[in-house]
Amino acid sequence: MAFDGFRPLDEKIFVEYLKATPSLAAKLGNQFDDLQIKEVGDGNLNFVYIVIAPGGSSVIKQALPYIRCIGESWPMTKERAYFEASTLQEHGRLCPEHVPEVYHFDRTMCLIGMRYLEPPHIILRKGLIAGIEYPLLAEHMSEYMAKTLFYTSLLYLTTTNHKNAVAKYCGNVELCRLTEQVIFSDPYKVSEYNRWTTPYLDADAEAVRGDNILKLEIAELKSKFCERTQSLIHGDLHTGSVMVTAESTQVIDPEFSFYGPAGFDVGAFIGNLILAYFAQDGHSNNGADRKLYKVWILKTITETWNLFYTKFTALWDNHKDGPGEAYLSEIYNNLDLQLLIKKKYMDDLFHDTLGFGAAKMIRRIVGVAHVEDFESIKEASKRADCERKALNFAKTLLKERRQFQNIEKVVSAIELLDTS
Amino acid sequence: MAFDGFRPLDEKIFVEYLKATPSLAAKLGNQFDDLQIKEVGDGNLNFVYIVIAPGGSSVIKQALPYIRCIGESWPMTKERAYFEASTLQEHGRLCPEHVPEVYHFDRTMCLIGMRYLEPPHIILRKGLIAGIEYPLLAEHMSEYMAKTLFYTSLLYLTTTNHKNAVAKYCGNVELCRLTEQVIFSDPYKVSEYNRWTTPYLDADAEAVRGDNILKLEIAELKSKFCERTQSLIHGDLHTGSVMVTAESTQVIDPEFSFYGPAGFDVGAFIGNLILAYFAQDGHSNNGADRKLYKVWILKTITETWNLFYTKFTALWDNHKDGPGEAYLSEIYNNLDLQLLIKKKYMDDLFHDTLGFGAAKMIRRIVGVAHVEDFESIKEASKRADCERKALNFAKTLLKERRQFQNIEKVVSAIELLDTS
Ligand SMILES: Nc1ncnc2c1ncn2[C@@H]1O[C@H](COP(=O)(O)OP(=O)(O)O)[C@@H](O)[C@H]1O
Ligand SMILES: Nc1ncnc2c1ncn2[C@@H]1O[C@H](COP(=O)(O)OP(=O)(O)O)[C@@H](O)[C@H]1O
Ligand SMILES: [Mg+2]
Ligand SMILES: [Mg+2]
Ligand SMILES: [Mg+2]
Ligand SMILES: [Mg+2]
Ligand SMILES: [Mg+2]
Repeated sequence: MAFDGFRPLDEKIFVEYLKATPSLAAKLGNQFDDLQIKEVGDGNLNFVYIVIAPGGSSVIKQALPYIRCIGESWPMTKERAYFEASTLQEHGRLCPEHVPEVYHFDRTMCLIGMRYLEPPHIILRKGLIAGIEYPLLAEHMSEYMAKTLFYTSLLYLTTTNHKNAVAKYCGNVELCRLTEQVIFSDPYKVSEYNRWTTPYLDADAEAVRGDNILKLEIAELKSKFCERTQSLIHGDLHTGSVMVTAESTQVIDPEFSFYGPAGFDVGAFIGNLILAYFAQDGHSNNGADRKLYKVWILKTITETWNLFYTKFTALWDNHKDGPGEAYLSEIYNNLDLQLLIKKKYMDDLFHDTLGFGAAKMIRRIVGVAHVEDFESIKEASKRADCERKALNFAKTLLKERRQFQNIEKVVSAIELLDTS
Repeated sequence: MAFDGFRPLDEKIFVEYLKATPSLAAKLGNQFDDLQIKEVGDGNLNFVYIVIAPGGSSVIKQALPYIRCIGESWPMTKERAYFEASTLQEHGRLCPEHVPEVYHFDRTMCLIGMRYLEPPHIILRKGLIAGIEYPLLAEHMSEYMAKTLFYTSLLYLTTTNHKNAVAKYCGNVELCRLTEQVIFSDPYKVSEYNRWTTPYLDADAEAVRGDNILKLEIAELKSKFCERTQSLIHGDLHTGSVMVTAESTQVIDPEFSFYGPAGFDVGAFIGNLILAYFAQDGHSNNGADRKLYKVWILKTITETWNLFYTKFTALWDNHKDGPGEAYLSEIYNNLDLQLLIKKKYMDDLFHDTLGFGAAKMIRRIVGVAHVEDFESIKEASKRADCERKALNFAKTLLKERRQFQNIEKVVSAIELLDTS
C-alpha cells in the first residue's frame, strides 16, 4: 500500500502505515500482532495516538487541516506538522534531555512519530491541579528555555544562519495568525469566540475591552510578536505542553514555533504557573490544604526566572567568542561594557516575559481557550473569584511590567494581591 | 546569440544583448545604429551604463560578484540585483512619481534596464556640494518614504502578506551583512578598512572605539536592524541614492533593501543632510557664502521629518479600516486611544530615525566609505574641523536621541554645536 497523498489515519490504514515505515516499524520491534493503539489527544488542535507493541512503542501525531476542538469550520493548515517536526528536531538537538526524540516525519501525511513519554509522565498542568510538587521543574525548564532561546538567537548564530532560519519559519504564518487573534486581539474586542465565567466576570471582561492603557500595551507586545525575530521560540509553552515525572521534564507540541520574541516562551510558562497559583484556592477544599503548595509554585516561578537568567547569561559568556554576531568581542571588549549589554538584554527580556506572561493569562480568562486549572473548579462563583484575582494581577503586570526590577518583586505582588 | 549564463557586459556583447531583449529594444526605438553607450557608475558596487539611441534611451545596471570599488578581493553576491529590481518595482508601484520605471530584469545576467534619468538630473549629493537649493526635495522625499514605509508595514499589510515578503527578502542577507559590518561594527573597533582624516581625527576615532555608552547604543540599533521586520526599507537611502532636478526627485539603487526598521531609511536621508550641512563651511570659501544655504538645509531637514510625519499618519488614518493588522479598528476604537498609539509609533520611529541617522554619520567619518561632501574639501585641517563637528553632533544624537522631542530641537542642537 502506498501513502502518496494526505490521508487522515484511521483504524484500517494505521497498521499498514506503521509496517510500511521502516523507522517506526523498527521502534516497534517489527512486531505488529499485539499492537495497542489509543487516541489520547486532549489538546486543541491535533490527533495523538499512543502505539504500544510487545517490542517497543511510539507516539504518532497527525495534523488535520482544521482545528480539532472546533471542527472543520475553523480550517488550519496541516503544514503546521512540518514546523512542529522541525522544531522538535532543532530544539531536541540543542536540549535532548527535555525534548522527545523524533523517530519519523512524513510531510505529506503531516505525521510525526516520536518517543512515547510513558507513565508516570503526565501533563504538567494536571500535576499542578493535583497539587504535586516537581522539585526539578524550574531547573529543567530553565535549562530548556536557556538553551533553545540562546542558541537560536544572534548571540550564537551568524546573521546568515539566522536569516535563513527566519525565512523558513515565516512559512508558519497561519499558526502565528491564530496566536495574534486569540492572544492579542479577541480578548480586547467583542468576539463570538470569547467566553468567561458569566455573569460574575461580565464587568471584568467589559473593563478589559474598555481599557485604553491595556490596549496600548498589548499593541506593543503584538508588534514585537509580529516583527521581532529574536529566537526560534516554541510559541505555545504553557503547562499543557510539558510532560513531567518527578525526575523528567519533556517539552512537546511546538507547532506554533517561529522566530519571535524570546520573552514569549518564558512568559507563557511563567504566566501559566501564575494561573495555576491563583487556581489553587479553588482546589483546596478537597480535604487537602494548598497553602504549602502555593508557596512551592511561587518558589518555582522565582527559580525558573533566576535559573534561566543564570543559564542564559552563562551560555552567553561561554560563547562570547563564538559565531554569534550581535556583540562582537572586539567591540564589546571590556568588563564594564559586557555587564552593560547583558543587563540591557536581560532587562528587556525580563519585561517582555512579564508582558507576554500577562497577555497569556488574560486570554485564558476572557478569551476563547480556557485552562483546566480554572475549568476544573466546578462552583462558578468560586471559579470567578480565582479568575478575577488572576485577571487583576495580569492587568497590573501588563501595564506596569517595566517597574518590576526582579522576579522577587513580581512574586511579592502576587502574594499581596492574593491576600488583600 | 543566447545569454543563458551570467556574463559581465562588454562592448562585444552589449549591443547584441540589447537587440536580443525585446523590452529594451523597444525602449530604444529598435534602432541600434547610432547607439551611444557610456559607463557612468560612480557608485561603490556596480556597473551602470547609459544607452542613448536615436529613438530612445535606457540605463543598464549590472551587478558583478564583487564590490566594484574594492575589486574581486571583496566578493559580494550578484543576486543583489534581484532584490534591487524587486524593490524598484515594489516601491515604484507604491510611489511611481519618485522611482524610475524598470523596463527589464534579467536574473541570470543580474541586469536591470530602467528609465534613464536624463540631465539636468544629477545626484543630490553633488547638488548639495554645489550649493543648489531644491525647493521640492522635502516634499518629494517625505512622500517617497511615507508611501514605501507605510504600505509595506503591518499598518497596511496583513500578517500573511508581510511574513511572505519578509521571507523573500531574508535572501538579501549578504547585503545586510555588509551594512552590519560597515555601519554597526567597523567604526567601533580597530579595522583595516577604517580610515579618517589623519592625524587630525586620530584621537576622535580612538574615542569612538573607547566609548562604552556609544557602543551600548549602537548595539541596540544593530539589534533592531537585524531583528525588526517593520517595513520594506530601501536600505541605502543616502543623498547619493537620490537624483534631482528643480522639479523631479528620483530614488535609485535599493540593492540593500529588506524588511527592517523604517527609521533606518528616514535616518539615512536626514543623517546625510546633516553631513551636507557640516561640510558647507569647507565649501564656502569658493567666493560664494554658504550661510543661506545652510539655513535651507536645516529647513529641509525640519520639513522632511514633519512632512513625513504628516503624510505617514495621514496614510494611517485613511487606511485605518484597511487590510493592516497591527491595530484592528474594533480594538482601537476611540479617538484618545488612536492618538495614543499613533504618538507611540511615531515617537519610536522618530528616535530610531535619529539613532540610525547618527550611526550613518559616524561611519562616514571614521569608517570605510566616506562621502564626497567632506572628501571634496581639499585642505585636510579644514576638512577635519567640519568632520569633527559632524562627528560630535552624531555622538550626542546617538546617545541622547530619546531626549529630543521633535525635529526642531534637533535642528537647534545642530545650530548650537555649529556656532559654539
Ligand atoms: N510524546 C508523547 N508521549 C506521551 N503522550 C503524548 C506525547 N505527545 C502528546 N501526548 C499526549 O497527547 C496530548 C496532546 O498532544 P499535543 O502535542 O499537545 O497535541 P495538540 O497539538 O493537539 O495540543 C498531550 O496532552 C499528551 O497527553
Ligand atoms: N536611472 C539612472 N539614470 C541616470 N543615471 C543613473 C541611473 N542610475 C544610476 N545612475 C548613475 O549611476 C551612478 C551609480 O548608480 P547606483 O545605482 O548608485 O550604483 P551603485 O549601486 O554602484 O552605487 C549614479 O550615481 C548615477 O550617477
Ligand atoms: Mg498541546
Ligand atoms: Mg498543539
Ligand atoms: Mg549607489
Ligand atoms: Mg548601490
Ligand atoms: Mg485595519
